[in-house]
Amino acid sequence: MKLTILGCYAATPRTFTNPTSQLIEIKNRLFLIDCGEGTQVQLRKNKIKFSKINHIFISHLHGDHFYGLIGLISTFSLLNRNNDLVIYGPKGIKEIILLQLRLSNSWPNFGLHFHELTSNQSELIFEDDKVMVKTIPLKHRVYTNGFLFEEKIAERKLNVDAVNEYQIEKCYFQNIKNGKDILLDDGTLISNEKLTFDPEKPKSYAFCSDTIYNEAIIPIIENADVLYHESTFLESEASLATKTMHSTAIEAATIAKKAQVGKLVLGHYSTRYDAISLFKEEAETIFPNVLLADDGKSFDL
Amino acid sequence: MKLTILGCYAATPRTFTNPTSQLIEIKNRLFLIDCGEGTQVQLRKNKIKFSKINHIFISHLHGDHFYGLIGLISTFSLLNRNNDLVIYGPKGIKEIILLQLRLSNSWPNFGLHFHELTSNQSELIFEDDKVMVKTIPLKHRVYTNGFLFEEKIAERKLNVDAVNEYQIEKCYFQNIKNGKDILLDDGTLISNEKLTFDPEKPKSYAFCSDTIYNEAIIPIIENADVLYHESTFLESEASLATKTMHSTAIEAATIAKKAQVGKLVLGHYSTRYDAISLFKEEAETIFPNVLLADDGKSFDL
Repeated sequence: MKLTILGCYAATPRTFTNPTSQLIEIKNRLFLIDCGEGTQVQLRKNKIKFSKINHIFISHLHGDHFYGLIGLISTFSLLNRNNDLVIYGPKGIKEIILLQLRLSNSWPNFGLHFHELTSNQSELIFEDDKVMVKTIPLKHRVYTNGFLFEEKIAERKLNVDAVNEYQIEKCYFQNIKNGKDILLDDGTLISNEKLTFDPEKPKSYAFCSDTIYNEAIIPIIENADVLYHESTFLESEASLATKTMHSTAIEAATIAKKAQVGKLVLGHYSTRYDAISLFKEEAETIFPNVLLADDGKSFDL
Repeated sequence: MKLTILGCYAATPRTFTNPTSQLIEIKNRLFLIDCGEGTQVQLRKNKIKFSKINHIFISHLHGDHFYGLIGLISTFSLLNRNNDLVIYGPKGIKEIILLQLRLSNSWPNFGLHFHELTSNQSELIFEDDKVMVKTIPLKHRVYTNGFLFEEKIAERKLNVDAVNEYQIEKCYFQNIKNGKDILLDDGTLISNEKLTFDPEKPKSYAFCSDTIYNEAIIPIIENADVLYHESTFLESEASLATKTMHSTAIEAATIAKKAQVGKLVLGHYSTRYDAISLFKEEAETIFPNVLLADDGKSFDL
């Protein structure tokens, strides 16, 4: 599981900071989360192959989270993309994109699909054989969702020595990996645990931005391996955080602690502060395992 | 008159090149022309005061000419702008911007006005005491206008020695600068040319992008001091230029020559070429006074 931060600063793109966008690579699938202005340039700078992005998740319709989407779609078109593209985001995103494509008379030559979100409950919005994505309803000034990316429980691992010892034929291997016991020709039942090892624990990544401090998300993100939680402000601006429906570093750490996640990644920093290390310092007073997002930074998780 | 190129490359923003946007400063007024994705960052890099921009002219609704507009408007809002902002552009631009502002629930706290264009004839769209702006109907794949920025003819310059010699009172000076003759108390008529010098020749700047080679624009831009004309392609891609309704460097130079402009600025380069100097080389075979636009470059004209 690899997380690449394309942008993690609040409000507006600036000379050296970019608004929110990140890539989570999980089981060889690449998901783009949010798409602030300039995201396509950040993708180029980070040498991401555009054609590998087939699913884009937009948390909410504030500009610093989606103004780069129409440009990215247009560039996909200019690059003669073939793959379908699916956009997941709040109701309204389809109208915004289609209006602009219509007025510029430049309809994409690939399938462009929209999965618009309106629910205030967590729901499964993507699933294939290896990965699931669920929404995390957040509380912000407009309708907002975080996203929980979860690996599915993998197959059990074949104990090669054991299957050889019992002389089990290859055609049964998939059943064994699926957890089945095996009945030998002589009538002996060999339990699955004798033939397999436990699979790797499935990993999960929770993206939560933008949001006010909200304990309602804890049951959804509980035990996630990695939580990205916005921390727009430091404790000195706690009242501003409440007023603008953002979080402080300490609030992000409190959610991480209560949800017993493995690691907390902080981001969505206000540019008013001199150093982002201040966010880590404050968060670590509550939760030990804190990482700082920064534009262009990758985390192998 | 000062021209600042914020971006002058075709199609998509890239790591080191920006889509179209430029500033023309004329008689202390600052006009933004086109606003591709990333324009607000280019404005910051070039240390332009955001509050000085009150009029934005959008040539057409292809993404590389306006996808940065919604982000710039949002940033104006975040910066607590007070001045009114007027957007001039093709019909549809108002719907695009207002839809996004409505869905993000972030209405600007300044006056935001739209002047939508639909005419296929050149028309006066802006005028104050010193400057006029007219449209230049262009031929492209969608409805497109260039813009002609013209200084108004300035007042005549007072000949201080002459007015002193005739002992003319101060209260007549404005009439004299406006070109009036003066009747002295003794009945002598003093012709204006004895009391004034010619004013400076008013300057003009014509922006033409995107467009196929189109001689119909010549009467509108004739004798302009400076013409920016798109040159997306070199002669080797002349047929591609025709097909995509763009121009070559030689076509831009031919328009410059026929319109007898002072200087030609080339831009809107396709990124397929190794060096933009090739555009200048080709254009100079037709027209001598060629300048190359480049991102971040300023011209004192």
